Amino acid sequence: MLNQAPENVSRIACIGAGPIGGGWAAFFLAQGYQVRSYLHVESEYEALMRLLDTAWSSLEQIGLAEGASRDNFSWTTDLAEAVAEAEFIQESVPEVLELKQELYRTLGDIVDAEVVIASSTSGLSMSDIQAKCSTPERTVVAHPFNPPYLLPLVEMIGGKKTDPCSVEWAQQFYRVAGKVPLVMQKEVPGFIATRLQEAIWREALHMVANGEATVEQIDQAVVNGPGPRWALMGPCEIFHVGGGEGGMAYCLDQFGPALKLPWTRLDAPELTPELRQAMIDGCIEMTRGQDFATLSKKMNDGLVEIAKMKRRQQQQQNE
Amino acid sequence: MLNQAPENVSRIACIGAGPIGGGWAAFFLAQGYQVRSYLHVESEYEALMRLLDTAWSSLEQIGLAEGASRDNFSWTTDLAEAVAEAEFIQESVPEVLELKQELYRTLGDIVDAEVVIASSTSGLSMSDIQAKCSTPERTVVAHPFNPPYLLPLVEMIGGKKTDPCSVEWAQQFYRVAGKVPLVMQKEVPGFIATRLQEAIWREALHMVANGEATVEQIDQAVVNGPGPRWALMGPCEIFHVGGGEGGMAYCLDQFGPALKLPWTRLDAPELTPELRQAMIDGCIEMTRGQDFATLSKKMNDGLVEIAKMKRRQQQQQNE
Repeated sequence: MLNQAPENVSRIACIGAGPIGGGWAAFFLAQGYQVRSYLHVESEYEALMRLLDTAWSSLEQIGLAEGASRDNFSWTTDLAEAVAEAEFIQESVPEVLELKQELYRTLGDIVDAEVVIASSTSGLSMSDIQAKCSTPERTVVAHPFNPPYLLPLVEMIGGKKTDPCSVEWAQQFYRVAGKVPLVMQKEVPGFIATRLQEAIWREALHMVANGEATVEQIDQAVVNGPGPRWALMGPCEIFHVGGGEGGMAYCLDQFGPALKLPWTRLDAPELTPELRQAMIDGCIEMTRGQDFATLSKKMNDGLVEIAKMKRRQQQQQNE
Repeated sequence: MLNQAPENVSRIACIGAGPIGGGWAAFFLAQGYQVRSYLHVESEYEALMRLLDTAWSSLEQIGLAEGASRDNFSWTTDLAEAVAEAEFIQESVPEVLELKQELYRTLGDIVDAEVVIASSTSGLSMSDIQAKCSTPERTVVAHPFNPPYLLPLVEMIGGKKTDPCSVEWAQQFYRVAGKVPLVMQKEVPGFIATRLQEAIWREALHMVANGEATVEQIDQAVVNGPGPRWALMGPCEIFHVGGGEGGMAYCLDQFGPALKLPWTRLDAPELTPELRQAMIDGCIEMTRGQDFATLSKKMNDGLVEIAKMKRRQQQQQNE
C-alpha cells in the first residue's frame, strides 16, 4: 500500500539540480506542488536559479496551475532533510551506476518504504540501480525528455525487484501532474523516443561523413519537411493519414516494397502479415476510428498554426 | 539563357493532378501565379477541386499573396495546351520511369527549350528520366514534401545532362516563390528528408515487430518528446543547443561514446576527428554565431507556442 493516492500528493523532493533535476523542479512548481531540491553542493544554487528563471517565464506563458508559486520552492544540501516530508521523489543525479546505487542504498533506508522513488535515468536499468537498495519495490525509471518542463513525455519501467503497483501508482501520479507517461513493455536500451531520435541522428552523421549533405541542409530538411508534422502526429499516424481513405493498410501495401530500397542505412524488418496487421490495428485503435477527413484536417490545421508561429518569430527576429 | 528571370515568372503549368500535382497548383495559386493544370483524364477534376478547396482554406489562414486568386486557375486534358504559355513547369505524374521518360520526350519537343521543367519525383533519378528528352539541359528534380502547399522543403538535383544553370535558376525561382530549396551535393536515394524519416520509420517497425512498443506508444513518444523540437530546429542544432555553452563540441565529446550503444538498430559511422570538426563547424556556420542563450530562448519560445496551440486544439476537440 503506497502512502498517498496519486492525486493527493503535494510535497515532492527533486534530487539533483542539473538541467533535468532543475527542469523537474520547475515543472512541479508550475503544477502547484511544494518542491524541495537536494543540491550536491551549495555552489549549484546559482545555476539552478538561472534555470528556474528561464523555465518560469515559459511556464507562465503556458499558464500556471492554481496555487503555483516559486515560493513553494526550498532547497538543501542535506539529503535526509530533502526527502523528510516528501510524498514522491524524482531523482536526477549524474548517469554513473555506482553513484546511483549508493544513493538508492541510502534512500532505501531513510525514505518511508511507501514513497515511490523515480529515476530520470536515460541509460541505466532500474534492476542495476536498485541492486543495493533495501526497499527496491517502490523504485521505478521515469525518463523525461528535455526540457522536462515543456515536453510531456515520461518513459517508465520497473526493475526486477520493482512492485508493478509502484509503476502503476507513478503512472497515475504523472497523469495527474499533466505528463504523458508511457510504460514500456520491455527493458530496451534508449526506450522509445531516444531510439527513434538516435536513428535520425546516426543517418545524419553518415550523410555528413559521406559528403551527401551539409549540417545545415540536414536541419533545413527536417524543419521545412517532416519536422512540423512530427510536432502534431507520430510517424505511424502520419503514414496512416498519408494513405488517404485507405489508411495504413494502403500505405503499407503501396510503400512496402520501399522498405527494401536503400533510403537509409538502417535495414527494415521483414513486413510479415503479422507486422502488417499490427501496424493497421494499432493505427485504427490509436485514432479511435476518426476518419481520413478528420485526421487530415487536424494535420492541416496544426501545420497552419506552426507556419503562422514561424512567421511571427521571423518577423520578431527582423524587428 | 533561360526565358525569364526567376522573379518575373507569372504563368506555371502543373502536370499531374494527384495530391502532389494538385498541392503544387494550390501553392502557386496562393503565391499569386497563373496556374494551368494538365489532367490525364477529365474524371480527375472533382478530386482536384476537393484538394484545392481543402488547401485553399489552409492557405487563406496563413495569408495569400497580393493578387492571389482561384480565378487564376485553369485546366485541360491537352498536354500541348497546358504547357503552351508556361514559363515554368512542375511535373508530378506517377512514379513510373517509362511514363516519365515518354512524357519528357514529348515535353522536350513541344516546350520552349528555355523553360525549366522540374520533376516532383521522390525516387527516380533525373539522369534516367531525361534519357529520351531532346532538350534535357533544362530538366531538374525538385522534390517537395507533402503537403506541398504547407511544407516549404524542395530537394533539388540535376541529371547527367542537366545544365547547372537550370538548377541555379530553379533554386532562385523557388526562393522567390517562398519555398526552401536545397540543392543536393550528390544523387542519393531518398534525398535528405526521406532518408531521415525512413530511419525513424524502420526503427519504429522493428520495435513493433519485436513487441518493444505499441504503435500508439511510438506516436505518443514522438509527439510528446522530440517531435515539437523538430518543428523548430533540426537534429544538429538541437544537440548544439543541448550541449549548452559548449555547443556541438561538448555534445560530441560527452555523448560520442553513446554512438556505440545499441540505442537504435542503425550502426553509427566512426566519429573521426574530421567528422567531429565538420559537425562543429556546420553548427557554428548554420547558427551564424548566435550564442547559447539566444538559441535556447528560440527553442523554448517555440515549444511554448506549440504547447499553447495543442491546448487550444484539445479544447476545440472537447467542445
